[in-house]
Amino acid sequence: MIKRIAVLTTGGDAPGMNAAIRAVVRCAINNKLEVMGVFRGWWGLINEELKLLDHHSVSGIINLGGTILKTARCPEFQTVEGQNRAYQTLKKNSIDGLVIIGGGGSFRAAHEFYKKYKVPCIGIPASIDNDINGIDVTIGSDTAINTALAAIDNIRDTATSMERIFVVEVMGRESGYIALQVALAGGCEDAIIPERRFDLESICHDIVEGNLRGKISWIIVVAEGAGSAFDIAKKITEMTGLESRPVVLGHIQRGGRPSAFSRTQAATLGEAAVECLLQGESDKAVTIKDGKIILIDLEFAITKKKLDVDSWYNLIRVLT
Amino acid sequence: MIKRIAVLTTGGDAPGMNAAIRAVVRCAINNKLEVMGVFRGWWGLINEELKLLDHHSVSGIINLGGTILKTARCPEFQTVEGQNRAYQTLKKNSIDGLVIIGGGGSFRAAHEFYKKYKVPCIGIPASIDNDINGIDVTIGSDTAINTALAAIDNIRDTATSMERIFVVEVMGRESGYIALQVALAGGCEDAIIPERRFDLESICHDIVEGNLRGKISWIIVVAEGAGSAFDIAKKITEMTGLESRPVVLGHIQRGGRPSAFSRTQAATLGEAAVECLLQGESDKAVTIKDGKIILIDLEFAITKKKLDVDSWYNLIRVLT
Amino acid sequence: MIKRIAVLTTGGDAPGMNAAIRAVVRCAINNKLEVMGVFRGWWGLINEELKLLDHHSVSGIINLGGTILKTARCPEFQTVEGQNRAYQTLKKNSIDGLVIIGGGGSFRAAHEFYKKYKVPCIGIPASIDNDINGIDVTIGSDTAINTALAAIDNIRDTATSMERIFVVEVMGRESGYIALQVALAGGCEDAIIPERRFDLESICHDIVEGNLRGKISWIIVVAEGAGSAFDIAKKITEMTGLESRPVVLGHIQRGGRPSAFSRTQAATLGEAAVECLLQGESDKAVTIKDGKIILIDLEFAITKKKLDVDSWYNLIRVLT
Amino acid sequence: MIKRIAVLTTGGDAPGMNAAIRAVVRCAINNKLEVMGVFRGWWGLINEELKLLDHHSVSGIINLGGTILKTARCPEFQTVEGQNRAYQTLKKNSIDGLVIIGGGGSFRAAHEFYKKYKVPCIGIPASIDNDINGIDVTIGSDTAINTALAAIDNIRDTATSMERIFVVEVMGRESGYIALQVALAGGCEDAIIPERRFDLESICHDIVEGNLRGKISWIIVVAEGAGSAFDIAKKITEMTGLESRPVVLGHIQRGGRPSAFSRTQAATLGEAAVECLLQGESDKAVTIKDGKIILIDLEFAITKKKLDVDSWYNLIRVLT
Repeated sequence: MIKRIAVLTTGGDAPGMNAAIRAVVRCAINNKLEVMGVFRGWWGLINEELKLLDHHSVSGIINLGGTILKTARCPEFQTVEGQNRAYQTLKKNSIDGLVIIGGGGSFRAAHEFYKKYKVPCIGIPASIDNDINGIDVTIGSDTAINTALAAIDNIRDTATSMERIFVVEVMGRESGYIALQVALAGGCEDAIIPERRFDLESICHDIVEGNLRGKISWIIVVAEGAGSAFDIAKKITEMTGLESRPVVLGHIQRGGRPSAFSRTQAATLGEAAVECLLQGESDKAVTIKDGKIILIDLEFAITKKKLDVDSWYNLIRVLT
Repeated sequence: MIKRIAVLTTGGDAPGMNAAIRAVVRCAINNKLEVMGVFRGWWGLINEELKLLDHHSVSGIINLGGTILKTARCPEFQTVEGQNRAYQTLKKNSIDGLVIIGGGGSFRAAHEFYKKYKVPCIGIPASIDNDINGIDVTIGSDTAINTALAAIDNIRDTATSMERIFVVEVMGRESGYIALQVALAGGCEDAIIPERRFDLESICHDIVEGNLRGKISWIIVVAEGAGSAFDIAKKITEMTGLESRPVVLGHIQRGGRPSAFSRTQAATLGEAAVECLLQGESDKAVTIKDGKIILIDLEFAITKKKLDVDSWYNLIRVLT
Repeated sequence: MIKRIAVLTTGGDAPGMNAAIRAVVRCAINNKLEVMGVFRGWWGLINEELKLLDHHSVSGIINLGGTILKTARCPEFQTVEGQNRAYQTLKKNSIDGLVIIGGGGSFRAAHEFYKKYKVPCIGIPASIDNDINGIDVTIGSDTAINTALAAIDNIRDTATSMERIFVVEVMGRESGYIALQVALAGGCEDAIIPERRFDLESICHDIVEGNLRGKISWIIVVAEGAGSAFDIAKKITEMTGLESRPVVLGHIQRGGRPSAFSRTQAATLGEAAVECLLQGESDKAVTIKDGKIILIDLEFAITKKKLDVDSWYNLIRVLT
Repeated sequence: MIKRIAVLTTGGDAPGMNAAIRAVVRCAINNKLEVMGVFRGWWGLINEELKLLDHHSVSGIINLGGTILKTARCPEFQTVEGQNRAYQTLKKNSIDGLVIIGGGGSFRAAHEFYKKYKVPCIGIPASIDNDINGIDVTIGSDTAINTALAAIDNIRDTATSMERIFVVEVMGRESGYIALQVALAGGCEDAIIPERRFDLESICHDIVEGNLRGKISWIIVVAEGAGSAFDIAKKITEMTGLESRPVVLGHIQRGGRPSAFSRTQAATLGEAAVECLLQGESDKAVTIKDGKIILIDLEFAITKKKLDVDSWYNLIRVLT
């Protein structure tokens, strides 16, 4: 019987992580479990930086971006010694179960750890990139898209007023999800994503042709994994003779008040993670599919996600 | 073969309606259709207030709340004479298909009209209340929830600083959907909704008990269909002796920049509506279920939606 | 020589109070002073609820609405006994100076207390109503106006789409400042304020006449001290036969992330308050006039502020 | 007697320009003047791209960023031939007065043009950089600062959660105004501005020392005219061994819904500009000083503005 669990956040922070921590803590307490918060992800397990959390420890955090438990990279956790020390911390503190709030890299580490030490663990998918296999939407993704969209809406004002071309780089190393969503929602003219070859000549051809028809403002969204806004803007200027400016949204996409969707997700998945541990589940991630909680094997979650990008891409192009 | 369609918005305006109009117009043109925009909903059909829209007619509207086609109540459309005149307008203007962007009432009227005149029609669900049967989420609902949530976050600042009780009334005549989402995302202490009996004595008991434990700020969300914030706040003050204040969010929930989700929905459903008309569908609403476009009979859509409110309600209570 | 000061927030909370607390604390520490934070305003002095604050105590609060020191009404402070107890707390805790962050009522109490006990005190004007005499803009006022304006912008979407009349009630018991600013910035058609008689017949005449010219959406802002949105909307409906809806913005105007202006004000005035105490000033409020810090006698600050409302009102009318 | 004026926007767009256009147009019409809107700034005068505006032409724009009249660079206006053609357009269209909405460069061009052709002209200062001499705050500056501040607040979430150093580049080629305001309001640790030498070694020393005390998140704001966020972040990483990330806010600072302050300013200055032309003023800019409208010679406005940066800078440093 599980009596005490630990919760930690790892990988890049995502808005809604705090709401998820709050849900885990309060649902656990409601189920008579004790909960320890681990600081700085795996690092905190290795270095025994953790403390007991009560109902009040997670007050007033539901609407805050970031994570009160902090997060950090931890190369040491990839060593046998690091993992052993983490395991010792769990044993020493009588921790029977782990809730890991994070993205693909976090799930990979959790899966490896589970294989060795068999400490029950459940992952809550939180990542602005939305690149975890088997997961429709990760916590934080909706917020990041809205943040990027607000930036695009602002840029549109200048693009229209000054009749300029903008190349806007959004997050997404291996996934064009944010880029596609933002381009579709922002009425952008094109999207350059890792999943799809792009042909700058053809884009420039469109721009020049549009220019002749009188269309002189243009916003092209590029996922960071597919190219650099600086390089692309420079080439467009060279190839079209029209002024083209790069904007890199960067880390503003990571923070901020979580959206309603990111928060309700976090609440639901936090509750689900605790219940899964209580029911003896392990090595799984919780997610919502078609309105219902389902479980995904971590092993599956860490394989490459395939996004059907064509229908979105085509719609973006039809609508501009 | 359909050659010319009309698009109209009816019922209460919802953020994302403009994005939906834009998608319908541009997808239709992309499919070699002509599109007429009808002003003020059914009223515009009866009074022949409509005009041809081109690609440029819908420029710069994707991020605007409200509807450029305007919307209005139209009791005349419930009369045979009104319907006949609307039908004459369609014939006179060679309109082969109708796209109706609106809520449950709009779908009811569309269904009645279709039964009589057999003009192909497709509904795009747009309503902040999210109360249409068979539809997971209507266009505008996500935006309204985020708007209400921002208000709740603001109110929380005062509730905490002044240690007060607030009763916040949100939209939802027959549905507690907004209330539940907002209460869960806002970390509110209770939600009063039409789908569920509430017991003010029990709420007051909780408040008084919490007060003894030192918890003195409290936000209770109430759906407009379940009670009046003014009345409830007054009664709480009387029953607990603690100061309780009502806030009615009202029409601020209806407008504003549509969220990314409301806009991508609008784009996808606008495209789907046009394609359905081209494929000979009619008397149906388009919606997204588990990531895929599906069709719902209007006759089904206008029956009472049942919301499984208990799991949400219980989670709200566990988390506070 | 002053060695230890106390800081408290009283009256209604205003966004930027936390930024002001932070500035007071850190500037005091920078000047080798100790600072105690008093909880719940005067109540905390009477009940000796206060604690020493250090640099870290005010970390992470600059962007939060409300006040971490909380605020409360305190009728007991108007009694001799209450004041005596408050004075005893100051003596017992070796507090040499007081910084009061609050509005007109707070300044009145501070002035009375100073007259009796001669404990050096400096007021920092913070109030969303901006109704303190001799003060151009109080902390929080800019934020509240932007919050109300966002609401008005939302309502405009529906007003335009549904062609309706809205009467929007904003805060301001004795002052039309918020109403005038919001009406001017929101492009509203009229403003009803305490400082100026209004003639509903004349407003209705304008509406009906506008209606004949084709202008059918209308937003009238009313300061709470000048009338009730419910009553006015009801009368407009009766007198014009046109549908008119009330919206009461209420407590959403009080909270939320403080604007840049509210925060820079808070920083500047927090620093000024500490320096004034160090220089032996007392019974004064600090404020910014034409870019420079000036001091106002509390006795003057608590007299009725006169706002030159006519030029603003006339401009609102010319611009609609 | 002036009968017809023209209004144009030049230079970089700034939020509130539309509100200023609206105010100019409606105040002019209210004074029985005709108003022509010139497209793309001086370019529109040279190429006779202008049209008569009526009351309705400026409806629904008060809350939009950018400028409906568009703006453009116009090297041709620096030639005698270009200026002559612009003058011919004015004569041909019987334009007696000009309102120029723009920044320092726009005022310089207006001043030169006035010296040669003596067409009455009044400048309305609008520029996000707030770098015009004799002007306390330009239209758009308050909005840009709030936009940058929202970005900083977001970045703070990640800086705190991941305990990282961020270098955030804001606009300001020759002025540190935005950087200082944002750093003060955002609680940033340092600001690098053109008006003040900076010593990266000393900054790195602070960081390392803070790091030893346990302070590991850091946000340094840099004005674009004072250095590149990329270079500075790279050097900090090299010099401290701590991970430091650059963020360039770029064009998101230019657009977006104007703040309440930017809009009320725009309304007041739009009215003032029209009245100045009617009173025979010329070659001047209108601005608000200590709550009152004053006039500044364009010749003075285009000289280098001196900002007293030290008190702000010192306050930033004291408060972190």
